[in-house]
Amino acid sequence: MRLSEYFLPTLKETPAEAQIASHRLMLRAGMVRQASAGIYNWLPLGLRVLKKIENIVRDEQEKSGAQEILMPTIQSADLWKESGRYDDYGKEMLRIRDRQDREFLYGPTNEEQITDITRAFLKSYKDLPKNLFQIQWKFRDETRPRFGVMRGREFLMKDNYSFDLNIKAGRYSYNKMFLAYLRTFARLGLQAIPMAAESGPIGGDLSHEFIVLAPTGESEVYFDKEFDDIKILESKYTYSEADVADCVKTYTSKFAATDEKYDPKTCPLEEKDLKTGRGIEVGHIFFFGDKYSKPMGATIQDADGKPVPLQMGSYGIGVSRLVGAIIEASHDENGIIWPEVVAPFKVGLICLRVDDEGCKAASEKLYGDLQKAGIEVLYDDRNERPGAKFSTMDLIGLPYQVTIGPRGLANGIAEIKVRATGEKSELPIKDVVKSLSA
Amino acid sequence: MRLSEYFLPTLKETPAEAQIASHRLMLRAGMVRQASAGIYNWLPLGLRVLKKIENIVRDEQEKSGAQEILMPTIQSADLWKESGRYDDYGKEMLRIRDRQDREFLYGPTNEEQITDITRAFLKSYKDLPKNLFQIQWKFRDETRPRFGVMRGREFLMKDNYSFDLNIKAGRYSYNKMFLAYLRTFARLGLQAIPMAAESGPIGGDLSHEFIVLAPTGESEVYFDKEFDDIKILESKYTYSEADVADCVKTYTSKFAATDEKYDPKTCPLEEKDLKTGRGIEVGHIFFFGDKYSKPMGATIQDADGKPVPLQMGSYGIGVSRLVGAIIEASHDENGIIWPEVVAPFKVGLICLRVDDEGCKAASEKLYGDLQKAGIEVLYDDRNERPGAKFSTMDLIGLPYQVTIGPRGLANGIAEIKVRATGEKSELPIKDVVKSLSA
Repeated sequence: MRLSEYFLPTLKETPAEAQIASHRLMLRAGMVRQASAGIYNWLPLGLRVLKKIENIVRDEQEKSGAQEILMPTIQSADLWKESGRYDDYGKEMLRIRDRQDREFLYGPTNEEQITDITRAFLKSYKDLPKNLFQIQWKFRDETRPRFGVMRGREFLMKDNYSFDLNIKAGRYSYNKMFLAYLRTFARLGLQAIPMAAESGPIGGDLSHEFIVLAPTGESEVYFDKEFDDIKILESKYTYSEADVADCVKTYTSKFAATDEKYDPKTCPLEEKDLKTGRGIEVGHIFFFGDKYSKPMGATIQDADGKPVPLQMGSYGIGVSRLVGAIIEASHDENGIIWPEVVAPFKVGLICLRVDDEGCKAASEKLYGDLQKAGIEVLYDDRNERPGAKFSTMDLIGLPYQVTIGPRGLANGIAEIKVRATGEKSELPIKDVVKSLSA
Repeated sequence: MRLSEYFLPTLKETPAEAQIASHRLMLRAGMVRQASAGIYNWLPLGLRVLKKIENIVRDEQEKSGAQEILMPTIQSADLWKESGRYDDYGKEMLRIRDRQDREFLYGPTNEEQITDITRAFLKSYKDLPKNLFQIQWKFRDETRPRFGVMRGREFLMKDNYSFDLNIKAGRYSYNKMFLAYLRTFARLGLQAIPMAAESGPIGGDLSHEFIVLAPTGESEVYFDKEFDDIKILESKYTYSEADVADCVKTYTSKFAATDEKYDPKTCPLEEKDLKTGRGIEVGHIFFFGDKYSKPMGATIQDADGKPVPLQMGSYGIGVSRLVGAIIEASHDENGIIWPEVVAPFKVGLICLRVDDEGCKAASEKLYGDLQKAGIEVLYDDRNERPGAKFSTMDLIGLPYQVTIGPRGLANGIAEIKVRATGEKSELPIKDVVKSLSA
């Protein structure tokens, strides 16, 4: 993509309303623009990141055996009356009447809708287990939306729902999600720590929040330093029943708590083994049994032909929130530092002097070569001062910056800067593609 | 994917409410389930098709130079008051009040929202041209939603918006979309004919509908038989100004009209050159100049530093509607016949007798081999009668059916059926992967 053509409205000034780093940087980097309080337009650069995160979340869901569906954003209020949550949910639910004056709502979550689907189609224990996920926009009418996409009203969420014959099988489904979540966050370059959670308005028993560590996170967390040593992506856990149970045990046997639950008097760890940090909640998993299936009549025939209510769990990841969380975990005073897997482009190519014929020609050629090699590249071909180009690249945080200027060009040399470390090196221009293909 | 595990709730009976082929077949094939009138849940098989269509639409947008963004579904009513459409739109607009009693709406289209974004950021003629697209859910509260996803209330649409300095440049943007639309529909296996259109509630001048031909289409269309001979995907049109103008001229110089506009007395064609057929509207393009930019103050500085209103066009493709349109264009009495590019899976593999050890083993091996070769395969490993398996495969319409039964297996033979033609052939099992890789 040529920056001269790209719709990348970066801001020089920090918008006054933005209180936290990710909000400031997303606005300044031209990733989003607020439409209304807590409601955002995703501009090209922001949407590229959102989609990359979405794809990693999807991939890990599929690897765990979940199947993708898509439920509508607008739901009938009738289903929520069946479950008993229509009144409970309060003002956070965006309630709507259609032209026939029927009651609808913009889904804040989808337990009712999915129970309605599965009670229609899942009839026998032979249809189980099932785990259905979607990645869909939700709406929660927060009293005070703030922190940009971290606490928006319209937000993108991956939610899924497991259906099992009994509690033992339900726990297996729960454990699978536990592993899938750890893998998902690790792939996004985040350190995630699962913490026992209250079950909240959705209700239920088995319940964990996944908190990712970020220096500017929203809350203080306390955890066993051994968490730092577990490398989930290097572990040999499969999705077998024994493996996921072992994974859950490994994690839940170590101490971890948010500040709400932490009490130094009851903390089982010695001070030297305790770490503290700031954290951001990015996922939540629940097993709530027959909480919805019972009132909504979602029963299934067991092996004896006896009707039993479906045992269900629900699992959420805040996909749009993760964009903010990754920035909170990875930025410096100059801008964002994207982990390569979610970077909007891998490489920023800077032509230092577009009015220098040789410099322009060499940059154009390298741009073409990078594209041919399948490397995602944003090419700054604007007629701007070098300083403006460097600060734009630092702000938007692409992992590698490649600069071609007249001086280096005389020796056939480009400069490569690694955004994360600031480390610079010189390389023959002809070797750049190979060096970045790794 | 194993059919024994797949959430594919096919129906034996044709649902009484479904009046047209695509609606009947989408329900019977377990692609969707109605949530409320005109609002659908997309089940795994349906969602796979929807995403494939979406990806082709996206790819052609990007090839034309458009950049993807994503606007929220919930919009502030204020913007619509600025444009003057808030009252005009009537009851089709789903109006909402949030907890602060502020007026919002579920976007039926996005001219106001995009104008609000661009007036904030596009300042100079140097920022032009721009063409921004999104693929996002819309809501139109139809009086009488019907025909399944063909006329739903919540529906997926690709909409985009072009921004230019003057009318000449705006027409170039319009012409580019004209070509992009022709290419998109052709890639989806559809014959699309552009027809001059009234500009409708969105307003404007240059305006074409794209009608795809389908034997069970919603309206009668009349067109020059020469349309049958244009193969847009084989044409040499690039997105240069001259090429797209030539493309538009080639198409618009031939007669084509919907039944509303067709009058045998004024039709310029002799009977022998006139074809008629049934058609479905799947796209619409408009150039409407400063209709929104003027009232909303979206101006830009021209080369002389003079403020001028942006010249805009808007362009829509009904992505979820296309799922239905493709089925209307391609089905028979046994079910759907997917064009390969949008088929949920390329191959349906049938193990004729799962209780026969050899048959099962050979099927499992072929299933693994197809997956390894990167071929999307749905494997019917259920313990069902052969007749049920064949009719499920015909119903869901995968392009190729591969059957392994005990009799053929004795000679190392599988049967391959091409869904579209019904043509069957026998092939050594070891050659199946290679034969389907082409």
